[in-house]
Amino acid sequence: MTTSPQVTMLGLGNMGQALARAFLAHGHPITVWNRSPEKGDALVAASARRAVTVADAVAGADLVVVCVVDYVAARQLLEPAAAALRGRTVVNLTADSPDAARELAGWAAGHGIDYLDGSIMTPTVTIDTPDAVLIYSGPADLYERHTATLAALGGAQHHLGTDPGRAAAFDVALLDLFWTAVSGLSHAFALAKAEGIDGADFAPFAEGLTSLLLSSVDEHAARLDEGNYDADVATLATIAAGVEHVVEASGRAGLDTSVQQAVLAQMRRAIDAGHGGDDVSRLTAALLSDRRPKWASLRH
Amino acid sequence: MTTSPQVTMLGLGNMGQALARAFLAHGHPITVWNRSPEKGDALVAASARRAVTVADAVAGADLVVVCVVDYVAARQLLEPAAAALRGRTVVNLTADSPDAARELAGWAAGHGIDYLDGSIMTPTVTIDTPDAVLIYSGPADLYERHTATLAALGGAQHHLGTDPGRAAAFDVALLDLFWTAVSGLSHAFALAKAEGIDGADFAPFAEGLTSLLLSSVDEHAARLDEGNYDADVATLATIAAGVEHVVEASGRAGLDTSVQQAVLAQMRRAIDAGHGGDDVSRLTAALLSDRRPKWASLRH
Repeated sequence: MTTSPQVTMLGLGNMGQALARAFLAHGHPITVWNRSPEKGDALVAASARRAVTVADAVAGADLVVVCVVDYVAARQLLEPAAAALRGRTVVNLTADSPDAARELAGWAAGHGIDYLDGSIMTPTVTIDTPDAVLIYSGPADLYERHTATLAALGGAQHHLGTDPGRAAAFDVALLDLFWTAVSGLSHAFALAKAEGIDGADFAPFAEGLTSLLLSSVDEHAARLDEGNYDADVATLATIAAGVEHVVEASGRAGLDTSVQQAVLAQMRRAIDAGHGGDDVSRLTAALLSDRRPKWASLRH
Repeated sequence: MTTSPQVTMLGLGNMGQALARAFLAHGHPITVWNRSPEKGDALVAASARRAVTVADAVAGADLVVVCVVDYVAARQLLEPAAAALRGRTVVNLTADSPDAARELAGWAAGHGIDYLDGSIMTPTVTIDTPDAVLIYSGPADLYERHTATLAALGGAQHHLGTDPGRAAAFDVALLDLFWTAVSGLSHAFALAKAEGIDGADFAPFAEGLTSLLLSSVDEHAARLDEGNYDADVATLATIAAGVEHVVEASGRAGLDTSVQQAVLAQMRRAIDAGHGGDDVSRLTAALLSDRRPKWASLRH
């Protein structure tokens, strides 16, 4: 008979607590640590062991899971415990940028710590349910070694590649998509309300357009991978004329239009570069061709 | 036996031509007019009558459908034909702002012209298919009188209210939602690509997040209508921290971040106003409470 791998959970915010509860529910002996220890009270009542220091918390752990506010915080708590972590596996589920993930992976490698980076793509309530989506990157054999333990977190789990920054890259790009879109949704509801349209009346149409967005994702991806930006339906020039109506109508309604003006300016730059007759997916290509060399902003 | 209502189509861009073809296909005698007459060649070959002036085009018409670039163009072509239009019905399917629709409705009323405003929510290819979505506003009895004729355009057609600006308000608000979201999608694909992630690898996750957006629409609407912004899942403060990662990672990748910075600034204004612990739907309420009085921008 095998014993369940021992898990240590560092960071007990809402997400960290949910992760710890999931490991507990799946029979893993768990040690918890948080800067403010009282966040662990409910878990201790449910049989978790509470550690006073990170070094104490990780002693004996088969898997050390980290979930804190960012990688500065992650590094601050891991550094003093570097010796205790040697030879163990850290799975860092803290959200941050791809470069931050690569830097922390480099630090871990320098201290003989096995390091897997990960991102949680779904809200806290999905943990330990089929709706959870978690993505990982880093050494494939390391991921395979801990797959059975991580399965406690539920849902769909994906290893996306060996570059430790890859999970974080998916994460930030998906945050970009989601929150920019939510900003558009929020502004659209405000524009509708300013014109006397209630949320409930607007919602079915907003769902219709969001479904159209959903059905456009695959084509956007295919066009980008193929470099084919010939318009089938609307051209960038037509689309920009529509966004001009949005800016004008929003301005007349007294609403802030900073986001919509930035969207319009981006479209106009692509049109000015000669792409007015192209499909909207040209925006992605234009953003990429206009980009500054990587790190240029940090060289000054 | 009744004869099919006579339709006049003013404006033969891609959409105008599609509308005219649909009326023809459903057995309506149709007269077409366009500033550049040759745009009507294919329709004339398919039995449409071509008129040389707008006044000639509308003589005998039961329904005059307009689809041009904007309301300035619509007004320019309708004004010289005001006398010929008296007592007839104009359905204006040109896209513009709610106030432009109200102004044109006022002009029509002053000339004894029955006026219905409308917006086409779906691409040209959907016309005369079940996928078409058209919305109308203006006098309800006028809409009812022409419903059977307009049915030729296909799909789902909705009368949204008597305010002639209401269809245009839905239209601009939905354009706002769609193109801001597409901007987010385009930027997310660019960020992914800059980090070495191909479109095809990113697409399934982008679809997952877009589905999550779709499932959030109803709650956003309900919260707005109820004025309930208490956070259940993520708070504005947490969300803003995520968008900061997006801006940082995009900047490091050398990508333009103007849209994402504007989104972040909007979130920070709501947080600074004391709403950092609220649900993201608070953004809509904050946009509405921050708005300038209507027309203020035009009073100077």
